[in-house]
Amino acid sequence: MAAKNGSARFEARLSEIAALTETLLDRLLGLGPVAGERARPARLLDAMRYASLGGGKRFRPFLVVESAALFAVPQELSLMAAAALECVHCYSLVHDDLPAMDNDDLRRGRPTLHKAFDEATAILVGDSLLTLAFDILARPETHPDPAVRVALVLGLARAAGLGGMAGGQMLDLAAEGRFAAAPPQMDLKDVEQLQAMKTGALLRYGCVAGAILGGADEGQRMALDRFGAIVGEAFQIADDILDVEGDAATVGKATGKDADARKATAVGILGVAKAKKKLFSLIDEAESALAPFGANAALLKAAARFVAERRA
Amino acid sequence: MAAKNGSARFEARLSEIAALTETLLDRLLGLGPVAGERARPARLLDAMRYASLGGGKRFRPFLVVESAALFAVPQELSLMAAAALECVHCYSLVHDDLPAMDNDDLRRGRPTLHKAFDEATAILVGDSLLTLAFDILARPETHPDPAVRVALVLGLARAAGLGGMAGGQMLDLAAEGRFAAAPPQMDLKDVEQLQAMKTGALLRYGCVAGAILGGADEGQRMALDRFGAIVGEAFQIADDILDVEGDAATVGKATGKDADARKATAVGILGVAKAKKKLFSLIDEAESALAPFGANAALLKAAARFVAERRA
Repeated sequence: MAAKNGSARFEARLSEIAALTETLLDRLLGLGPVAGERARPARLLDAMRYASLGGGKRFRPFLVVESAALFAVPQELSLMAAAALECVHCYSLVHDDLPAMDNDDLRRGRPTLHKAFDEATAILVGDSLLTLAFDILARPETHPDPAVRVALVLGLARAAGLGGMAGGQMLDLAAEGRFAAAPPQMDLKDVEQLQAMKTGALLRYGCVAGAILGGADEGQRMALDRFGAIVGEAFQIADDILDVEGDAATVGKATGKDADARKATAVGILGVAKAKKKLFSLIDEAESALAPFGANAALLKAAARFVAERRA
Repeated sequence: MAAKNGSARFEARLSEIAALTETLLDRLLGLGPVAGERARPARLLDAMRYASLGGGKRFRPFLVVESAALFAVPQELSLMAAAALECVHCYSLVHDDLPAMDNDDLRRGRPTLHKAFDEATAILVGDSLLTLAFDILARPETHPDPAVRVALVLGLARAAGLGGMAGGQMLDLAAEGRFAAAPPQMDLKDVEQLQAMKTGALLRYGCVAGAILGGADEGQRMALDRFGAIVGEAFQIADDILDVEGDAATVGKATGKDADARKATAVGILGVAKAKKKLFSLIDEAESALAPFGANAALLKAAARFVAERRA
């Protein structure tokens, strides 16, 4: 019963933060140019809104806001950082879906951006959402202390760039055999590295951003960093299991793609049964990482379970 | 003779700053992952180096370093901001050259990135260089004061994003008639707006970045902002004239593209003769904008002349 109640509370809070994130992104992507902008071209703005509004669980914003809440950071501040992180997530989906990348037509049950608009617009939407993320983090509304804001910028850049998400995406294309005659041999460690970069880095940053906003001490920051890394790992294993077991209608995007691409995944290497076992041991690890925060971290613990058990 | 000496001094200084920028970018794009990065995938790193090293006049870095020099900012700081700005410039070239965008095969006399590598790599290289720019600006090596660093971040994001360069690129695609049956009617004001965003915003930011690094007062900052805007305008008019009059071998990229695309340009609207006249009046305006800095601004003034007179 405790777990069940925790899950209901978590889902209510996830929805609440999703709605707040939506409202904030809607405002940030409003018509009026802000200082230093000359104009917001209508087609680009419309497409940025298509890419970032009206969908998504907003799980990364949840991580930012709930991690920051451990330190009693005002929610209007943590939502700004949450919106910035969500912009990076949405940009990565738009670029990953492009024909030259994963070539997906369906995303969250809707046509992907280059299908609804066109490829050039999709490239510029991704570029502009990525840029907007740093714009948002640099604004005084995100935190009164410039040292905090610049730490948020540096952390996001490291998580998203060459040594993080974008690098992970490159490793993922290589894992499909894109740059060789056949997919390379990858062991579990290689796959974990790839996934820690491609998917894990942004989730992990979500938790670390809360610590940065909250002026966490070194121990608290490391605890959240560790929690974020575990959640990232669990997230990807759950995703791979969905790719094997889910159907496109429920998941909201094409499934069975990894096998089609003969791509090495943790699930492919371990098998589904062992992968599920690993997933549940990761939930335990996630919970113990949060031990220093006691009962305050109940919702974050529930989030780790949600990630492991999600069906879409 | 004075102008001639000014021009020789300018060219020597431009070369010097180009060499220093090259060395710094080479270091920033080194093998080793930095804190918060897990690894730097070799193919992505190689391609980022291909996109950013070994070419280019480094005119934007020049603007940053020389504007900052007006305030005696140590060159090792201004070069960091200069390298960040150059990363954004290089990312924009890689994405603009993509088949779905301008579809160029030649850049700086070499195959464009997607020709030398592939389209997916080119998309990720652009994303990673853009991200690296904010990473660089956020580092303590760029300036000891976090308030300065975060102001640099915000300014670059505004210059590069939806209301700046990326928005200008979208307007430029629309100007070709990409999203309609025929190119839209554009008057001189529309064209100037497009160009102020597409090309002008980054050049302008280069000058403003110097003011931010130097802790300029409001009047000094506005003077550099105005100078940067004028240089941006002159740069684009000179570029359009080159597109009409230059040959591909000298310019290092395809020419005659605007006419082929039936694209409205200031040169197309004014004619070459009037456009050249406008260019020379812009040089005068650029020089008077810098009047508050007296003789210290001689190299920046020479830069404005260089922009107007360049042949490649």
